Amino acid sequence: MEAKEEDVRLGANKFPERQPIGTAAQGTDDKDYKDSPPAPIFEPGELKSWSFYRAGIAEFVATFLFLYISILTVMGVSKSSSKCATVGIQGIAWSFGGMIFALVYCTAGISGGHINPAVTFGLFLARKLSLTRALFYIIMQCLGAICGAGVVKGFQQGLYMTNGGGANMVAAGYTKGDGLGAEIVGTFILVYTVFSATDAKRSARDSHVPILAPLPIGFAVFLVHLATIPITGTGINPARSLGAAVIFNRAEAWDDHWIFWVGPFIGAALAAIYHQVIIRAIPFKSKS
Amino acid sequence: MEAKEEDVRLGANKFPERQPIGTAAQGTDDKDYKDSPPAPIFEPGELKSWSFYRAGIAEFVATFLFLYISILTVMGVSKSSSKCATVGIQGIAWSFGGMIFALVYCTAGISGGHINPAVTFGLFLARKLSLTRALFYIIMQCLGAICGAGVVKGFQQGLYMTNGGGANMVAAGYTKGDGLGAEIVGTFILVYTVFSATDAKRSARDSHVPILAPLPIGFAVFLVHLATIPITGTGINPARSLGAAVIFNRAEAWDDHWIFWVGPFIGAALAAIYHQVIIRAIPFKSKS
Amino acid sequence: MEAKEEDVRLGANKFPERQPIGTAAQGTDDKDYKDSPPAPIFEPGELKSWSFYRAGIAEFVATFLFLYISILTVMGVSKSSSKCATVGIQGIAWSFGGMIFALVYCTAGISGGHINPAVTFGLFLARKLSLTRALFYIIMQCLGAICGAGVVKGFQQGLYMTNGGGANMVAAGYTKGDGLGAEIVGTFILVYTVFSATDAKRSARDSHVPILAPLPIGFAVFLVHLATIPITGTGINPARSLGAAVIFNRAEAWDDHWIFWVGPFIGAALAAIYHQVIIRAIPFKSKS
Amino acid sequence: MEAKEEDVRLGANKFPERQPIGTAAQGTDDKDYKDSPPAPIFEPGELKSWSFYRAGIAEFVATFLFLYISILTVMGVSKSSSKCATVGIQGIAWSFGGMIFALVYCTAGISGGHINPAVTFGLFLARKLSLTRALFYIIMQCLGAICGAGVVKGFQQGLYMTNGGGANMVAAGYTKGDGLGAEIVGTFILVYTVFSATDAKRSARDSHVPILAPLPIGFAVFLVHLATIPITGTGINPARSLGAAVIFNRAEAWDDHWIFWVGPFIGAALAAIYHQVIIRAIPFKSKS
Repeated sequence: MEAKEEDVRLGANKFPERQPIGTAAQGTDDKDYKDSPPAPIFEPGELKSWSFYRAGIAEFVATFLFLYISILTVMGVSKSSSKCATVGIQGIAWSFGGMIFALVYCTAGISGGHINPAVTFGLFLARKLSLTRALFYIIMQCLGAICGAGVVKGFQQGLYMTNGGGANMVAAGYTKGDGLGAEIVGTFILVYTVFSATDAKRSARDSHVPILAPLPIGFAVFLVHLATIPITGTGINPARSLGAAVIFNRAEAWDDHWIFWVGPFIGAALAAIYHQVIIRAIPFKSKS
Repeated sequence: MEAKEEDVRLGANKFPERQPIGTAAQGTDDKDYKDSPPAPIFEPGELKSWSFYRAGIAEFVATFLFLYISILTVMGVSKSSSKCATVGIQGIAWSFGGMIFALVYCTAGISGGHINPAVTFGLFLARKLSLTRALFYIIMQCLGAICGAGVVKGFQQGLYMTNGGGANMVAAGYTKGDGLGAEIVGTFILVYTVFSATDAKRSARDSHVPILAPLPIGFAVFLVHLATIPITGTGINPARSLGAAVIFNRAEAWDDHWIFWVGPFIGAALAAIYHQVIIRAIPFKSKS
Repeated sequence: MEAKEEDVRLGANKFPERQPIGTAAQGTDDKDYKDSPPAPIFEPGELKSWSFYRAGIAEFVATFLFLYISILTVMGVSKSSSKCATVGIQGIAWSFGGMIFALVYCTAGISGGHINPAVTFGLFLARKLSLTRALFYIIMQCLGAICGAGVVKGFQQGLYMTNGGGANMVAAGYTKGDGLGAEIVGTFILVYTVFSATDAKRSARDSHVPILAPLPIGFAVFLVHLATIPITGTGINPARSLGAAVIFNRAEAWDDHWIFWVGPFIGAALAAIYHQVIIRAIPFKSKS
Repeated sequence: MEAKEEDVRLGANKFPERQPIGTAAQGTDDKDYKDSPPAPIFEPGELKSWSFYRAGIAEFVATFLFLYISILTVMGVSKSSSKCATVGIQGIAWSFGGMIFALVYCTAGISGGHINPAVTFGLFLARKLSLTRALFYIIMQCLGAICGAGVVKGFQQGLYMTNGGGANMVAAGYTKGDGLGAEIVGTFILVYTVFSATDAKRSARDSHVPILAPLPIGFAVFLVHLATIPITGTGINPARSLGAAVIFNRAEAWDDHWIFWVGPFIGAALAAIYHQVIIRAIPFKSKS
C-alpha cells in the first residue's frame, strides 16, 4: 500500500497499461528485472565452447557484409560525376545504417551483434562480456572489414583507388580536432543507443525497448552519417575505418587513422560512463 | 451475454484476436486499463529524488545531441552549392525526425523523452507531469539546445554564420501569420501523436500503440519538416529554435523568434484539448 | 496426436515458437481466433452513440492533416525550379506514405483509421462496418480533405494555382485507361495490405501482423506513389483527389476526376474479393 | 542450480528480462523451442489441399505486384533526362525493398511470403518445404513476374523498350564474374536474413525476431539494391530477372540471364549452409 503511493508520488511507471513515453519512470526497490552479473575479465571456459567461436565467425561475416555493401555503395556514388544519377550521399548514409539494422537483427542472438570494436569496447567497460571475448570479437571484426573492403576493390581496382576507397579522412577545412570531436560524439550516440537497447531494467518495463532494439541502433548509425560524412566520412567504427585503410593503403588514409580508433573508443567510454553512472546510478547502489 | 451484444452493436474492440485497424474501438464501462491520476501542480517530494535530476540531465543530453546532429546536417547541406552532392533537404528532414525517434527510444523510460518544450507543455496541460518538473525540463532542454548548436558553430564559425546557422525564420514570400500557422499545425501533429502514444486506454488494447510508439513520433517530426522547411525551416520545438537563435545571434533570427514559442505552445495546447476533450471525452466523464 | 500429424503434413503453423515467414500457414478446424460477425447494413443504435460522432471527427481531422502535410510538400517541390533544392519527388512519396503511417497509428483505435473512402468502401464490402458508418466516414473524409487543401492554398494562392495545386490528373503521354489501371492496381495494393493487417485469423497467429500494422499500410501508400506519381500524381484515395480538385477547381482537374473515384473503388472491391474469397475462402466455409 | 550457473558462465540468454543485443546467446540442452521436422521431399497430401493452391495464388499475386510497382518505378526514373525530377536511384531501391517488406507482411501467413525462387530454393535446401511445393512456388513466381512486367510494358511500349525494360544486365566496365559475384553475395544477405527471421530457436528467445521479421527482409533487399544497381541492376531474385527479360526480350538481356539464376541459387545455398552448419550446428547435433 505504502509502496504504491510512493510510486505515484514519484511518477513511477510500473502498471503494464501505462505507456512510458511522456511519463517519467522511477524505479523502486522491488525490482521486476534482474541485471546479469558482471562478466569476468578472463573466462577460460569460453575458449572450449563452440558458441564462442561461432560468435566470432558471426562477427566476421557480419562485418564482412557491412563493409562490402557500404563501401560498394560509396564507390557507386563516388565514381559518378552527377550525384543525381546515383543513390546520393543520403543513400550512403542509408547503406551504413540499414546494414547495421539488418545485421544486428540477424546476429544479436548469436554474438550480441556488435559488428564494431567501439561497441565491443563500450560493453566490455560495462562488464557485459569478458576481455577474452572482447579481444576475439575485435580481431574478427577487423579481419571481416578488411576482407569486405578487399572484395569491393576487386570489382574495379582503378576506380577504387581514384575515388578514395571509402577510407575515412578529415575533410579539407576541418582540423584533426574537429574530426576527433565528431567521432567522439557520433560514437557516443551509437553506443548510448546500444546501452539503452540492452538495459535489462528498461526492457522489463517498456515494451518498445527489446522489440524495436535493432531499429534505433541502425538509425543512430544512419543519423551520424547524415551529419558527419562532410567532416570525416564518418567512422564511429574502427573496424570499418581499418578495413578501408588497409585496402586503400595510401599515406593520406593512414595519417588520420588514429582518430578513428581514439575517437570511437573515447565516445564509447563516455557512453558507458553516462549510462552506468547517470542513468543507472550503478556505482551508488548498495549491493542487492 | 448482454454486455457482449452491446459491444458488437457499438463496434467494440475488446477481443484480443480482433485487429483494431479498420474497426472502430468503443470503450464500455468495464475498463481494462487505468489512467494515472493527474500530476499535482507542485510536487515538493520530487526535488529530493535523484530520478528528478537524472531526468533533467537526460533531457539536457538528448536535446544537446538532437541539435548537434540536426544542425550539423543542416550546415552540411547549406554550405554546398550543389544540393545533389549533399544529403539534401530530405536528408535534413530525416536527421530531425530520426534523432527524435532514436532519442525518444533511449530516454522514454528515464524522463519520458520529451526533448521539446512544446511536448512538455502539452503533457503538463493534460496533467501528466507537475509544473515543477515541466519548468525544470524546459530549462534543461533549452540549455542542451544552446550547447548543441554551439558545438556545431565551433566546427566552422565562418560557414556557420554565412549559412544561417540553422536558425528558424519565416522565408521570403510568406507572412508572419503563415509562419505562425505552419508552426501551430505542425506542433499539433507532433503533440497529438505523442498523446496517442501515451494513451493508457489505447495501449491496453492496441498492441501496436506501446511498442511502436517512438517510431510515429519520430515520423511526425520528419513529415512536418518535409512540408514546412520551405516556410519557416520548421521549428515545432522552441528549444531547437532558441538554441540556434542564441548561437546565431543576429537580428533576423530574433525578429521572428516569438513565432517559434507562441506557435508550438498553441499547437500543443490544441492537441491536448483535442485528445482530452474529443478523443478521451475526459471532462464529460463521471468520476470512476 | 492425430491432429498434430495432420498439421505437420499440411505445413500448419500453430506452435508459438514457429515463425510464419518462410513457412506455409494452414488453418484447421480448431480455431484459435474468432471472426467478428458481419456488421449490419443499417445500425440505428450507432447514431445515438458519442463514439460514432467522435470517430467521424477523428476521420475529419486525420484527412485534414493528411492533405495539409502532403499537398504542402507537393507545393514546396513544385514551385522550385531545381528539384535538388527540395525534398524531391521521393520526399513527396514519403509525405503521403508517412502521414498515413502516423495517422493510422493515431486513429486506428478511434475510428479504425481509414482516412480514405476507398478503404472505407473495401471494408464495408467485407461487412466490417455498417453502411451508415461508411457513408458518414466518407463525408467526413471529403470535408477534411477539402479543408486541408484549402489551408495550403491559403499560404500562397498564386503559386498554388500556377503549380497545379496537387490535383490528380493523367499525365501527358498516358491514356485515361492507363490512369484508371494505375489507380485500380495501386488501390488494390493498399486495401489488400489493410485487409492483411485486420485479419483476425492472422493476428492471432503471426505476432508481426497486429503490432506492425500501421507500418506496411503507410509503406503501401509510399510505394504506390513511387511508381505512379509520373502517371496520375497518384490518387488511390478519392478524398485526397476531391480535396485538391475542389480547391484547385480548374477544368483540367475535373475532366479526369471520375478516374480517381472509379479506379480506387474498383481496386478496393477487387482487394476485398481477393481477401475474402481466395485468402480466407469465406464463401466456401460452412457456418461455424 | 548447476544449470543456471552454467548459463551465466557461457553468457546464456534465457531470462526474459535479458535483452539479447550486446550479449551472446548460448543454447543449452533444455530447449524452450521446438524445431519443426524436416519437410518431406514429396508430399502427395498437399496436392489435395486448398491451402496449397491458395499459397501458389498468393505467390503469383505478390510477385505480380512486386514487379508491377518496382519496374514501373524503374521506368519513371529511366525515362526522365534529369534524375533529380524523379524519385531517383534511391527511390528505385526503396521500391524493391519496400514492396518485399509489404508483401512479406501480407503473405507470410498464407504462403510463407517467399516472392523469390532463390528464397524458395534456400528454404527447400533447409527442408522447410517439400520439393512439390518449392517447384509450384517457383513456377507461380515466374508467371507472376512475367505478368507484372507485361502490365508495365502495356502502359508505354515505346519508352519501355528504349529504356531497358528494367531487365538485369551486367553494366559496362564490369565482367560477368563481377556480376555473378555481386548476385551471390547479395542473395546471401537476403536469404541469411530470411533464415534469421524464421529461426524457431531465436524467435522463442529474442522478442524482436518474430515481430520485426518482414522489416529486415525488406531492408536487405533495399540495401543490396543501393550497392549493386550500378553493377547488374540487382537481381537477387530469378523471377524478377526472368519477368523483365521475357517482356523486354532482347538479346542483351538474355545473354547475361544465366547469371541471375546461377548467382542467386549459389547465394541462397551458401546462406542455407551458413545458417544450418555454422549458426545452428544442426549436422553436429545428436537427435533429440
